[in-house]
Amino acid sequence: MRHLLGIEGWRRDELEAVLDRARAHLPGGPDTTHLLRGKVVANLFFEDSTRTRTSFHMAARGLGAGVLDWSPSGSSTSKGETLLDTARNIEATGPVAIVMRHRSSGAPHLVAKHVRCVVINAGDGTHEHPSQALLDAFTLRQRWGSLDGRTVLIVGDILHSRVARSNLWCLKALGARVIVCGPPTLVPPGLEALGAEVTHNLDAVLPQADAVMCLRLQLERMSEAFLPSTREYSRLFGLTTAREERMKAGALVMHPGPINRGLELAPAVADGARSVILEQVSNGVAVRRAILEVCTS
Amino acid sequence: MRHLLGIEGWRRDELEAVLDRARAHLPGGPDTTHLLRGKVVANLFFEDSTRTRTSFHMAARGLGAGVLDWSPSGSSTSKGETLLDTARNIEATGPVAIVMRHRSSGAPHLVAKHVRCVVINAGDGTHEHPSQALLDAFTLRQRWGSLDGRTVLIVGDILHSRVARSNLWCLKALGARVIVCGPPTLVPPGLEALGAEVTHNLDAVLPQADAVMCLRLQLERMSEAFLPSTREYSRLFGLTTAREERMKAGALVMHPGPINRGLELAPAVADGARSVILEQVSNGVAVRRAILEVCTS
Amino acid sequence: MRHLLGIEGWRRDELEAVLDRARAHLPGGPDTTHLLRGKVVANLFFEDSTRTRTSFHMAARGLGAGVLDWSPSGSSTSKGETLLDTARNIEATGPVAIVMRHRSSGAPHLVAKHVRCVVINAGDGTHEHPSQALLDAFTLRQRWGSLDGRTVLIVGDILHSRVARSNLWCLKALGARVIVCGPPTLVPPGLEALGAEVTHNLDAVLPQADAVMCLRLQLERMSEAFLPSTREYSRLFGLTTAREERMKAGALVMHPGPINRGLELAPAVADGARSVILEQVSNGVAVRRAILEVCTS
Repeated sequence: MRHLLGIEGWRRDELEAVLDRARAHLPGGPDTTHLLRGKVVANLFFEDSTRTRTSFHMAARGLGAGVLDWSPSGSSTSKGETLLDTARNIEATGPVAIVMRHRSSGAPHLVAKHVRCVVINAGDGTHEHPSQALLDAFTLRQRWGSLDGRTVLIVGDILHSRVARSNLWCLKALGARVIVCGPPTLVPPGLEALGAEVTHNLDAVLPQADAVMCLRLQLERMSEAFLPSTREYSRLFGLTTAREERMKAGALVMHPGPINRGLELAPAVADGARSVILEQVSNGVAVRRAILEVCTS
Repeated sequence: MRHLLGIEGWRRDELEAVLDRARAHLPGGPDTTHLLRGKVVANLFFEDSTRTRTSFHMAARGLGAGVLDWSPSGSSTSKGETLLDTARNIEATGPVAIVMRHRSSGAPHLVAKHVRCVVINAGDGTHEHPSQALLDAFTLRQRWGSLDGRTVLIVGDILHSRVARSNLWCLKALGARVIVCGPPTLVPPGLEALGAEVTHNLDAVLPQADAVMCLRLQLERMSEAFLPSTREYSRLFGLTTAREERMKAGALVMHPGPINRGLELAPAVADGARSVILEQVSNGVAVRRAILEVCTS
Repeated sequence: MRHLLGIEGWRRDELEAVLDRARAHLPGGPDTTHLLRGKVVANLFFEDSTRTRTSFHMAARGLGAGVLDWSPSGSSTSKGETLLDTARNIEATGPVAIVMRHRSSGAPHLVAKHVRCVVINAGDGTHEHPSQALLDAFTLRQRWGSLDGRTVLIVGDILHSRVARSNLWCLKALGARVIVCGPPTLVPPGLEALGAEVTHNLDAVLPQADAVMCLRLQLERMSEAFLPSTREYSRLFGLTTAREERMKAGALVMHPGPINRGLELAPAVADGARSVILEQVSNGVAVRRAILEVCTS
């Protein structure tokens, strides 16, 4: 039994073991509802996320587990209870795993030190989102077999993106070349030391990519001051139909969702032949089943 | 496999097949928890409705399915995701059916065109509410055997009522005579062409009815300007104890709930011997089990 | 089949039967997921409570039941439906038990008179919180074997506490001596007639206690006028580390949660060797399983 707190520090064979296992959980695979029958997975989402919460919910159900959906509104948390007291209380009711999202980077790590059940990080601040990175890697492996020698281009707000961070560790560990691209204000320093190539010129690197991962421009987190430049953003970093035409033959388009259609991604590209966006969602359930299975066994 | 988007256009034998099947799902019937074991039914309620949501929840459970409860608050929808992207994402996580309510008429029809799983309309705008019509018809059939030659009187805000609309199709298809009655401002034109008789005089038609279906006066959707006349509404269209006494022997009182006691329906009538209101609720679960069973098989 | 509305009036042997049964539901006990398989427990929380709601959720799951989580926001209740109409509607959908919390004392008793399914009071106003009292007694019995001759000291806002009230009945019935202690304004008259000893001097009675039950100072329910005196409260009635040192050897510290750390209870005491606070939470699930089992059988 182990936690899934982040991708940083995982070895290639460890990542591959989870990804290999996820194949057995694809639709049409063997019935796995006996694996966690009579158990409960607790979804502790201090920050809202229908998408990830839903995916873990479906994954837990697929293993036969019940799901406890917990949210802070109207809860003990709103009465001033500390994070650790909340987590230890939930743990004391007996779930097999706590899946948690929190606005503070490191929150799941803190909880994991104080509870005995499995803790799975479903996104902590701007730090990591390991299950998203695993499902992205799984999707590419399903298409390519191996990531060795492939080039993945991550475009957008790298600075605030836990998705970008986890993906960088994961893709590198699995043998891919990773290029990150975004406005200078939204790319943090030091990524080269982690193995990424950094550019601010999308058009220069686009033809090299075997997959382009567009990140969501998180408008709801940005100040009004930034909003007037969404048009500028789209012009410089949006994956338009014109840009799509300059991509490699067979190159893929990815997005963790929810999409701002017409902003970071043109609708025709999101729904086009290169898009594996809905495959990412579908694969996400299989990967999260594998995560729950591996962590609780 | 088929969707349930509305009652309009259904043939009598198709309606009767679902209603016949619903009998097997009444309390005390055979265990049916194997039918959807290991499957999940997604409740997508863009508009709130504890009553209908609860009924579908209990129906799904009775077939052995898990339930994914989704609501727009704090979700991807609140981050600007389109209806279709939300629905396709939910579908990609693998539910066997999507039960959806939406404020826009036609929303479930749009979704049904773009997903492969079953879509069940749990109320779209002022358009249709097919499962309500089916449970109402089921309740009358349980009491009467057949609706042929029976007269059903629908009273209230016909204009905004999806319940009235679906019931009109359903009751007519099953052989009943349908009279609709309400204030001139709340009865839309053209109902005669659909087979309804229209009146604004409740007392004139009340003695002809074998069942009176009182609709909820949706105060929460009406402007303040209308509120002063609730007393007038009650005087002209409320089913008072005095009016109840002028109903046919054995005639029934129905209401889709929640009731405004003392407004459209007197408390003594709601709880009286003619009332089948709680039978409607109880039958609703059986009918929705049958809907889920028939649509997913 | 019977309800659990309160502890008042229960005989010792009746309480002990539930507590004895709860032992079988401790972690590691026999699989009990067949007991309510295919059934649904409805959680009707008119007032929010993640803690109690979660505990009943986990208990129901442990018996194999599904859980219907109902809350008033956006529901029929917010549309003006009466308590009884809501409860009768939920009942009509077929749950095996309704677990309800309501701000009005006596609300579950009213509902129990009008429905046929089991009603379990999960807290009504300032009246009773019977499952909390049972889990507290269970925790003490697990530690002590018997409560006979033991002294339990309840400290804090006795006036508004349904926990104190239910515990007083329960502990007395099981043979314990009960002392209640709080500011004169927060201790109601008449407790002596119920068998309690009353004091306003914590330090005078502290060394006599075999267990100290600290109640939560419900800041969110108190007017601003009271808040300046929280420091004074802590000085007079807080269980500080200095006070803990004057407790009997082996004496226990309890708290129903959520804790205001540093107010009614020092962090080092809450997490110290005397604390059974997380045992209370864990035992709560076992006791609530026993309650659901006994009430529905």
